[in-house]
Amino acid sequence: MSKKALILIADGTEEMEFTITYDTLVRAGIHCTSAFVSAVDTESPTNDAYHAPPFATCSRGIRIVSDEVFSPQHAGPDKYDLLVIPGGAKGAETISASEPVLHLVRAYVDAGKHVGMICAGSLAALRSRLPKQPLTSHPSVKSQLENDFEYSEDPVVISGTLVTSRGPGTTFPFALTLVELLCGKEKRKEVEGPMVFPGGHV
Amino acid sequence: MSKKALILIADGTEEMEFTITYDTLVRAGIHCTSAFVSAVDTESPTNDAYHAPPFATCSRGIRIVSDEVFSPQHAGPDKYDLLVIPGGAKGAETISASEPVLHLVRAYVDAGKHVGMICAGSLAALRSRLPKQPLTSHPSVKSQLENDFEYSEDPVVISGTLVTSRGPGTTFPFALTLVELLCGKEKRKEVEGPMVFPGGHV
Repeated sequence: MSKKALILIADGTEEMEFTITYDTLVRAGIHCTSAFVSAVDTESPTNDAYHAPPFATCSRGIRIVSDEVFSPQHAGPDKYDLLVIPGGAKGAETISASEPVLHLVRAYVDAGKHVGMICAGSLAALRSRLPKQPLTSHPSVKSQLENDFEYSEDPVVISGTLVTSRGPGTTFPFALTLVELLCGKEKRKEVEGPMVFPGGHV
Repeated sequence: MSKKALILIADGTEEMEFTITYDTLVRAGIHCTSAFVSAVDTESPTNDAYHAPPFATCSRGIRIVSDEVFSPQHAGPDKYDLLVIPGGAKGAETISASEPVLHLVRAYVDAGKHVGMICAGSLAALRSRLPKQPLTSHPSVKSQLENDFEYSEDPVVISGTLVTSRGPGTTFPFALTLVELLCGKEKRKEVEGPMVFPGGHV
């Protein structure tokens, strides 16, 4: 059965980090669902949070229509193999301020499912109080993370089922690492080829 | 005055190639406009071509809302400094089947304005009958191009104002080359830094 990934998106999400991850996972045969997280309180189903805007306005102005509006009860580790939190300062702030998202991060880790965070998305590891472990992020949020984690400047850091990365320039290795973890080394090679990286691979 | 770029998009456009280029150019202060090219005949303004769908459904399912519907009279080299044609087999087929687009490619080259083509987008160089010159593309369309151009396998090929590239894996160097050509080496460095490429640059 094919693997499934849930990729969060909000106004201000870094569109390259979102798009490279989603597209690369789809190329590996992973079924991807994007879910829009609203900037307003997502804990009260009676407010406007559950009324989808038609699209997320990303950090550099690209407007992306999400597949779904984020709904905690349809986002659990029983439904997906991987949860991804992209960066973009404002988008990551919205996503990592959502209590239902932070609860979900812990639920995925507890269930042994993979969680990917990139760029400022790594703030969700702090806000969801994951235990001290190796982690990386965009340099701009390093100071918020270095006391609570074993901070690394590697392009991609794997710690148990938590996979973190740095920014747009590390999103290809981030996404391909997720492919390798979910689908194996051979699938990663199969996906890398037609993407025509200089020198043949990332 | 800030530079302006027109980036075409269609159903089936490769969303990484579109998004990386648009976002990177915006980071350099270049004003970007995306224009949706319809798969139906765009030469007859009376048909449905000018009725925009709300979004382009890209090659791996990401739906992107374009800034405008492509309209030849508002797309000329008098209005923009750069025209970009992304790949994605179906999207590039649609774009390079559009006579108004092909006319525009020649108009940009004749006006000494830059034209960027990546992946299967390079088919537009053939269809618009640009003279034989150095060019690259996705390997999947090489056989259609190698007789009419000096085919290269370099990640990015600059020939006068025509800049061509290969696929998702070469889109960062493609976009940063366009930044350098339009805004200079210093701007390229300034944009590269916060993108956090492994090793510091592409």
